[in-house]
Amino acid sequence: MQHDTTTKMACCSNCFGCRRCSEEETRTPEELTILGEIRDEENEILPRKDYESLDYDRCVSEPYVEILEGMDNKKAKKYEALRWVMVFAIGASVGLLGLFVDYFVHFFTKLKFSMVGYSVEECSEKGCLPLSLLELLAFNMTFIFIASVLVLIEPLAAGSGIPEIKSYLNGVKIPGIVRLQTFLCKAVGVLFSVAGGLFVGKEGPMIHSGAIVGAGLPQFQSITFKRIKFNFPFFRSDRDKRDFVSAGAAAGVAAAFGAPIGGTLFSLEEGSSFWNQALTWKVLFCSMSATFTLNFFRSGINFNKWGSFQLPGLLNFGEFKCSDGDKNCHLWTAVDLAFFVLMGIVGGLLGALFNCMNKNLAKYRMRHIHPKAKFIRVLESLLVAMVTTVVVFAASMLLGECRDLYSPPSHNNTLSVGEDINSTIRQYFCSNKTYNDMATLFFNPQEAAIHQLFHQDGTFSPVTLSVFFLLYFLLACWTYGVSVPSGLFVPSLLCGAAFGRLVANILKVKLGMDIYAGTFALIGAAAFLGGVVRMTISLTVILIESTNEITYGLPIMITLMVAKWTGDLFNKGIYDIHIQLRGVPLLEWETEVELDKLTASDIMEPNLTYVYPHTRVQSLVSILRTTIYHAFPVVTENRPNEQDFMKGNILVSNNIHFKKSSVVSRASEQRRRCQSMKSYPSSELRNVCDEQRAAVEPAEEGEDLLQQMLERRHMPYPNLCPDQSPSEEWTMEERFRPLTFHGLILRSQLVNLLMRGVCYAENQPSATQPRLTYAEMTEDYPRFPDIHDLDLTQLSPRMIVDVTPYMNPCPYSVSPNTRISQVFNLFRTMGLRHLPVVNAVGEIVGIITRHNLTHEFLVAKLRQHYITI
Amino acid sequence: MQHDTTTKMACCSNCFGCRRCSEEETRTPEELTILGEIRDEENEILPRKDYESLDYDRCVSEPYVEILEGMDNKKAKKYEALRWVMVFAIGASVGLLGLFVDYFVHFFTKLKFSMVGYSVEECSEKGCLPLSLLELLAFNMTFIFIASVLVLIEPLAAGSGIPEIKSYLNGVKIPGIVRLQTFLCKAVGVLFSVAGGLFVGKEGPMIHSGAIVGAGLPQFQSITFKRIKFNFPFFRSDRDKRDFVSAGAAAGVAAAFGAPIGGTLFSLEEGSSFWNQALTWKVLFCSMSATFTLNFFRSGINFNKWGSFQLPGLLNFGEFKCSDGDKNCHLWTAVDLAFFVLMGIVGGLLGALFNCMNKNLAKYRMRHIHPKAKFIRVLESLLVAMVTTVVVFAASMLLGECRDLYSPPSHNNTLSVGEDINSTIRQYFCSNKTYNDMATLFFNPQEAAIHQLFHQDGTFSPVTLSVFFLLYFLLACWTYGVSVPSGLFVPSLLCGAAFGRLVANILKVKLGMDIYAGTFALIGAAAFLGGVVRMTISLTVILIESTNEITYGLPIMITLMVAKWTGDLFNKGIYDIHIQLRGVPLLEWETEVELDKLTASDIMEPNLTYVYPHTRVQSLVSILRTTIYHAFPVVTENRPNEQDFMKGNILVSNNIHFKKSSVVSRASEQRRRCQSMKSYPSSELRNVCDEQRAAVEPAEEGEDLLQQMLERRHMPYPNLCPDQSPSEEWTMEERFRPLTFHGLILRSQLVNLLMRGVCYAENQPSATQPRLTYAEMTEDYPRFPDIHDLDLTQLSPRMIVDVTPYMNPCPYSVSPNTRISQVFNLFRTMGLRHLPVVNAVGEIVGIITRHNLTHEFLVAKLRQHYITI
Repeated sequence: MQHDTTTKMACCSNCFGCRRCSEEETRTPEELTILGEIRDEENEILPRKDYESLDYDRCVSEPYVEILEGMDNKKAKKYEALRWVMVFAIGASVGLLGLFVDYFVHFFTKLKFSMVGYSVEECSEKGCLPLSLLELLAFNMTFIFIASVLVLIEPLAAGSGIPEIKSYLNGVKIPGIVRLQTFLCKAVGVLFSVAGGLFVGKEGPMIHSGAIVGAGLPQFQSITFKRIKFNFPFFRSDRDKRDFVSAGAAAGVAAAFGAPIGGTLFSLEEGSSFWNQALTWKVLFCSMSATFTLNFFRSGINFNKWGSFQLPGLLNFGEFKCSDGDKNCHLWTAVDLAFFVLMGIVGGLLGALFNCMNKNLAKYRMRHIHPKAKFIRVLESLLVAMVTTVVVFAASMLLGECRDLYSPPSHNNTLSVGEDINSTIRQYFCSNKTYNDMATLFFNPQEAAIHQLFHQDGTFSPVTLSVFFLLYFLLACWTYGVSVPSGLFVPSLLCGAAFGRLVANILKVKLGMDIYAGTFALIGAAAFLGGVVRMTISLTVILIESTNEITYGLPIMITLMVAKWTGDLFNKGIYDIHIQLRGVPLLEWETEVELDKLTASDIMEPNLTYVYPHTRVQSLVSILRTTIYHAFPVVTENRPNEQDFMKGNILVSNNIHFKKSSVVSRASEQRRRCQSMKSYPSSELRNVCDEQRAAVEPAEEGEDLLQQMLERRHMPYPNLCPDQSPSEEWTMEERFRPLTFHGLILRSQLVNLLMRGVCYAENQPSATQPRLTYAEMTEDYPRFPDIHDLDLTQLSPRMIVDVTPYMNPCPYSVSPNTRISQVFNLFRTMGLRHLPVVNAVGEIVGIITRHNLTHEFLVAKLRQHYITI
Repeated sequence: MQHDTTTKMACCSNCFGCRRCSEEETRTPEELTILGEIRDEENEILPRKDYESLDYDRCVSEPYVEILEGMDNKKAKKYEALRWVMVFAIGASVGLLGLFVDYFVHFFTKLKFSMVGYSVEECSEKGCLPLSLLELLAFNMTFIFIASVLVLIEPLAAGSGIPEIKSYLNGVKIPGIVRLQTFLCKAVGVLFSVAGGLFVGKEGPMIHSGAIVGAGLPQFQSITFKRIKFNFPFFRSDRDKRDFVSAGAAAGVAAAFGAPIGGTLFSLEEGSSFWNQALTWKVLFCSMSATFTLNFFRSGINFNKWGSFQLPGLLNFGEFKCSDGDKNCHLWTAVDLAFFVLMGIVGGLLGALFNCMNKNLAKYRMRHIHPKAKFIRVLESLLVAMVTTVVVFAASMLLGECRDLYSPPSHNNTLSVGEDINSTIRQYFCSNKTYNDMATLFFNPQEAAIHQLFHQDGTFSPVTLSVFFLLYFLLACWTYGVSVPSGLFVPSLLCGAAFGRLVANILKVKLGMDIYAGTFALIGAAAFLGGVVRMTISLTVILIESTNEITYGLPIMITLMVAKWTGDLFNKGIYDIHIQLRGVPLLEWETEVELDKLTASDIMEPNLTYVYPHTRVQSLVSILRTTIYHAFPVVTENRPNEQDFMKGNILVSNNIHFKKSSVVSRASEQRRRCQSMKSYPSSELRNVCDEQRAAVEPAEEGEDLLQQMLERRHMPYPNLCPDQSPSEEWTMEERFRPLTFHGLILRSQLVNLLMRGVCYAENQPSATQPRLTYAEMTEDYPRFPDIHDLDLTQLSPRMIVDVTPYMNPCPYSVSPNTRISQVFNLFRTMGLRHLPVVNAVGEIVGIITRHNLTHEFLVAKLRQHYITI
C-alpha cells in the first residue's frame, strides 16, 4: 500500500494538478474510510455514507406515550390478532404469487420446447436444423427482450434481489426496494427470463417479491384503516415494516423451496434482530401459509385432486430412495463422508472462482456499461440470450452422446412430482432406443435437469458431464448481473449436481465403488451452491427440507461448512460481493476479537451538530439546511467546578482524581485524537490538527482556562443567538464545551414540526405550543418531506420550538470506554440507527452510526490504533 | 383480595400475635412482591430473591484488557478452533450417552417382558396368573427402588430436568444443576425408572444430561489445560458456560428425537440471548454430531451394518406412508384440517386439566411429603410403581379385547426401525389367531406402543382406547413429580396418540370417512403434548423431524398453535408451572404492551449499597458482611450548583429548567415514591415514608439546602470514615445525595481482592497495589469463596483498596424514564445481571436486577401505578 501511494505521488508530481493530488490521491483507503469519502477505486469499494439506516428501536416520544396510556390488554390483543391476520394474508399472497410465476413459466417453457422439439425431430430427418435453431432463438430473444425492458422501467428489479433484501433486513434503507413497481417488474420479468432459457433461477426473485408483499400489504391495509377511522398508526414504523418484510421474505423462501423452516431461519440469519419468539412464530406461520397455499393450488391444478398436498415448493428434489429390492443399498455411508469433504473443498474453490469472475465482470459492467445509454443493457441481455441459445443447441447436437435407454428391472419409483423421470429424457439427434444425454440436460427446464442428475439411473457420460459443467459454469457466471431478474440458486444447484454426478460416475464406474449416485449429485450441488453463496444454517435446512430426508443433514452440513471455509479463504459470498459493490454499509455478524482493542471513543464521530431543547426556528432551519445528518442530539450546557475539593485528604483526592480522569470530555477527546493524528502519515490530516492544537495551547494552563470559563459564565449558550454561531475563532474548549445529553431528535421529526408550525412566541410560555398526535407524527411515513421543499414564509424566524415532547428521551447509550464488541452487539441486536456516546457525568462526547461500525471502518481504525501505540 | 385481607385481620385480632399479623399477614401479594419477601401461600408462589443470575455480559476489567492486548487474529482463530473441537466432543459424548441409556433400557425391558411374557403365556393355561403379576411387580419395584435411591443421593436428578435447564438458559443459577453427581444419578436413574415400567420418558433427562455434559466437558478441559500451562481462562465465565450448555441441551434433544434442527431451535427458544449466528452454527453442529454418533453406533449394533445410518434418534415415529397399491390414499386432506383444529382444542383442554391436576399434586407433595423424612419419597415411588404394575396387569387381563389378527393383503411396509410392527403385538390372555389390544399397548415399551397406534392397520376397539387413555392420563399425571428421573414427552405422546386413534376409529368406522388413521394418531399426540408443554417453534420442528415428513408441517403447526392457545386460557405449560413452584425468577419472552406505562424508575431498586473507587478494607469488609447484594456500583460524589445561570434570558432559563426537571435525582425519586406510597393502603409502608418525609421537610427550602451543602463542601465523602457511616440521623438529602456512576463490581471480585490482599497503604501511591491477572481473577469460578470464610487477620483495616482496575467500567445502563419494554429487551437480550439506572448527568439513581423484571413484580408495580394516578 505504501509503495502504491509513492508511485501515485511520483506520477502526480509530473502533472499540474499536484495540489489536488496531494489532497486526494495520496490518501490511503483507510484515511478515506475515516474521512467518509467515497472512491470507486479499482480494488476497493468503500461503504457509501449516503445510505440511510432503518430504526428498529421505538421512539417513546410524548405522542407515543399518549397512545400507550390509552392501551389496555384488550386493545393490545386486538392488534395482535390483526398482526396474525396480516401475516397469514402475506403468506397466502406469496403462495399465490408463486403459483402464478410457476404456471406461466411452465406454460411458456412447454410451449417453447414442444414446438422446438417437434421441429428438431422433423428437421433431424430433413436436415433443416438451422431452422430449428432460429425458431429457438426467436422464442428466447423475445422473452428476454420483454424481461429486459421491464428491468429498464425499474432497474432495481434486476438480479436476484437477495443482496437488496439482505441489506434491508440488516437495517439499510435502499430507496425503492419495496415499491409496488419493483414488485411488478420483478415478478413478471423473472417469468420471462426463466422462460427465455437463460441460466437463471426464479428463487431469488421469489424471495424479493415475497419481501415486497410483506412490506406493502400491511401498509396498504393501514391506509385503508385510517380512512375508516381505525386509529392504528402502529404499522407505520421501520420496526413493524421490517418485521413484515422478514415474514414476507421467509414466505418467499418457503414457496420457492417448500422449506418453511428454512425460510424462517433465512429471515433470522439475515434479519438477525434479537431472537424474538413472538416474531419467529409469526414468521414460521407465514412460511407455512405460503407453502400450504402453493401446495393446495398446485396439487389441485396439476393432479386435479383438490385437498391433497403433494407439491410443497416450486423446486423439489424428488425422493431419494433405494430401489425396494436392493437391501445392501445405502444412501450414504461413513466412508462416503471423506469424499463429501473433498467435494466440499472443490466446491468451495469452484465457488470462489465463480465469485471472483463474476465480481470482475460486475465491476466491468459498472464502469463500461452502466454509464452508457440504457438500451445497451438490453443489447447485452439479448447477446447473452443468443449465445446461450446457440451454445445449448450446438452442444446438444455436436457433443451429446447417444446412450442406451436404461430400463430398470423393477423400477416402480414414481417421483413425487407425479411425472415419470423418463418422460423428460430427450432423444434429439439420436436414433431410436437411445437418448442424447447432453440434450436431456439442456433441452429441459432446469428443475427437470436437476431431477435427471439426482435420480436417473441411466448414466451420463463423463465427457458430457464435464462439458455441461464447464459451459454452464461460464454462462451462468456471465448471466448473473445482466439486466434481467435472475436467481442464482437453481443454476448453481444444476452446475454442482453435474459436478457431483461426474464424481459419482468416476467412483462407481471407474473405481467400482458401491455408492448411490444421487447422493453424490446432491452433495455436489450443495458444495457448489455453498461455495458460491456461503450461507450456512438456513441453506442447510433449506436443502434438508427440499430433499425431505433428515438423514442427509450431516453430510449436507459438513459439505456446506467445508465449502464455506474453503471459499472464505479467497473471497466473500456472491451476495456479499454484490452488496459491497453497491457500497452498502452492511453490519457483519460480530466483530473480530482483535477489534476489541478499540473502544467506543475510538470509533465515534465527535463532531456533533446539536440542538437545544428550546431553539429558535431560524437556528433549526439553518441547521437542517446546512447539514445532512439524520438525527441531532438534544443537549444542554454543563460547566463543572469541583476544583475546591481537590485539597482534601489523600483518599478524597484519589477519588476525585479518578473521577476526573474517567470523564472523557469532548475537548480532551479531541486533543487525544490530534495527538494520535500527529503520528499518522497523512500531512493534510496533521495540519488540521495542528491548527486546532495551536488554538488550544493557550488554554492548557488550568488557571487560565478557569478564568475563561468564569468570564463566560453568564452566557452559557453562545450559539443560541444567530450572530454568535460557532465560528473559526472559537477556542477548542469553547467549540467542544461540555454538553449534557437529553435525547435524540430525527431530521424528519424536526421538518415535521416546522411544517406543521409547532412553535411558540418568545413572550409566551412554552405550553402554548401546539401539540401533535402520534398519527400526525407518522402520517408521511416512510417518505418525509425535505427541508428544501418546505414553504416556511409564514413562520416567524424568532419563534421558539420546544422539541422535547417529540424527541426520543431515552435512547440506548454507551460510555466512551465501552469495547467495540459490546457497542456492536448493542447496535446490531437492538437495530439502532444512532448510538450516542455519553460519559460518566452525562455529557455527550460523540455519536456512533452504522457507518462507524462497518468492517472497513473498524479495520482502518485498528490500523491507526496500532500506529499510534 | 380486599375481602380476603379483611377476613384475615378479623381472625388475627382474636389472637395474641396481633402485631405480627398486621405486619405480615395483611400484606397483599403485590406488596410482598415489591418488598421482596417470600411467602408460600396456597394459591400464590412468588419468585424467590435468593436465586443468583448468570451474567452473559463480558466484564471488560483491566486484567481482561491485558489479555485482549495480547490477542491477535491467529490466536483468536486457535481459540475458535478449540471451541469447534469442544462442541464436537460434546455432541459425540451426548450421542454415546444416548446409546448407553438406550442399550440398557432395551436390555432390561427385554429381559423383563420376555420373562414375564413367558410366565403369562404359561400361567394363562395353568391359572397361575397372580404369580406372573408378582414376577412383574418384583422386577418393576426393584428397578424403581434403584432409581429412587439415586434421586435420594442427588435430589436435583428428579423429574425431567427441562424446567431446570430452561431456568439455567434463561439466566438463573440453580446450584448443583450442572454437577457431575447430578449427571450420574440422572443418567443411571432414568434407565431404571423407564425399565421399571413407570409411565415416564427418557427424553427430558437426556436433555438435562446433555446440558451437564456441555457445562462440564469444556470446564474439565480447561482445568487440564491449566495444568499443562495452556493459559486459556476464556471458558471460565458464565457466558461461555451458557453457550456450551445450549449446545449440550440441543445435542440432548437431537439424540432423543433425531431432530438436530429441532434441538437447535429448542436451545434458541429457551436460551434466547440475541441471535448469534456463530453460536447457532456451533449448536447445530453439536446437534448433528450427537445424532450422527448415536445413529452410527445404533445402526452398527442393531443391524450389524457399520457405516450405515438408519436410526437417527432414540424416539422415532416410523414412516407414514400409504400402502403402495392405494392411489386414493392421502396422509391428510384439507377437510381433515377442520378435525385437527378441533383435536387441538380438545388437546389443549386435556393438557390444561393435566397441568392443573399435576400442579395441585406438586403443591401437596411440597407441603406434605418433602418436609418429612426422605425415605417417604422412596415409598411414594414404590407405591406408584406398584399401582402402575397392578393396573397394567389387571387392565390387560380384564378389559382387553381379543381381536382378529389383521393380515394386510399387500403389506410389505417394513418399519425403519427394522422390526416388523406385528412383532410387538401381544396375544396374552387371548386364544390363537387373536390378539389382546390392551396388552399390546401396555405390555410393550412405550415407543413400541406409539408405533402400534401410529402404524398398526388393525384397529383397536374404542373402549380399549378410551380406557387406555384414561388410565394412562391419570397414572402419568401422578407419576410426574415422583422422586425418580422422569420425562414427560413420551407419556404425553402415547396418551395423545390413543386419543387421536380413538378419533380416527370413530371417524373411520362409525362415520365411514376415508382417512389415514396414523395421521390422526399423530395429530392427537401433538395436540395433547402441545396442551401439556405449550412449546411452539421447537416442538413443531421436533415433531416434523421425528416423522421425517415435511408435509405434516402445517397440520402439526396448526394443532400445536390451537392447543397452546386453548391451554393458555387456563394455566401455564407444565414446565413453567414447575419453574413457578420452585420460585425461579424466570423472565418471559417479552412484556405486555400495557406494562409500557411503567418506566425504569418505577421498577428499579433505589436503595443502593455502593463502594467508592478507593475504599478502606474495613469498609469493604463491613459492606460485604452486612449485605447480601451480588454487585455494588462504584460511585463518586457530585454536587451541582448551577443556580447562577437561572437569571438569564427566557431561552436560557427554559433550557436550564428543562435540564433540572429531567434530571432524576435519587432524593426526588425517593420523595416521589413516598408520595405514591401515601395513597397506598398499607399503613406500615406509609409510616416508613412519613418518617423519611418528616426528616426531609426542613430541607425543602432551597436556600437552606444550599447552605447545608456549602457547610459540607469540605467533606464530600462523609461515609468513608468509619465513624461517620450512614446513620439514622442523616437527612434524606444526605442519604440520597447525588452519586456519579463509574462501574459495577461484583461481590465475588471484592472477596477475591481481599483474599489475595490487593490493597495499598495510606501513605503510598495507589500504584503500589499488587495486580491480579485474569487467570487469578477467574481461578475459583464458578464457586467463589464466601466473605465469612475468609481469614482477614493479616490485612490492616486501614489499608485502601483501589477497585477500579477490576470493576466493569462500562456496563450497559438505562435512563430513568426508559420504558419497560426497552429495559426488558436490553436486560434479556444481552443477558445482564445488573442494570444500573443512570440519569442525564451520570448520577446513579437505582439498579435493576432480574427480580425487578419478573412478571409478578411488574404487574404489582402496574397495579400500584394505577392506584397512584
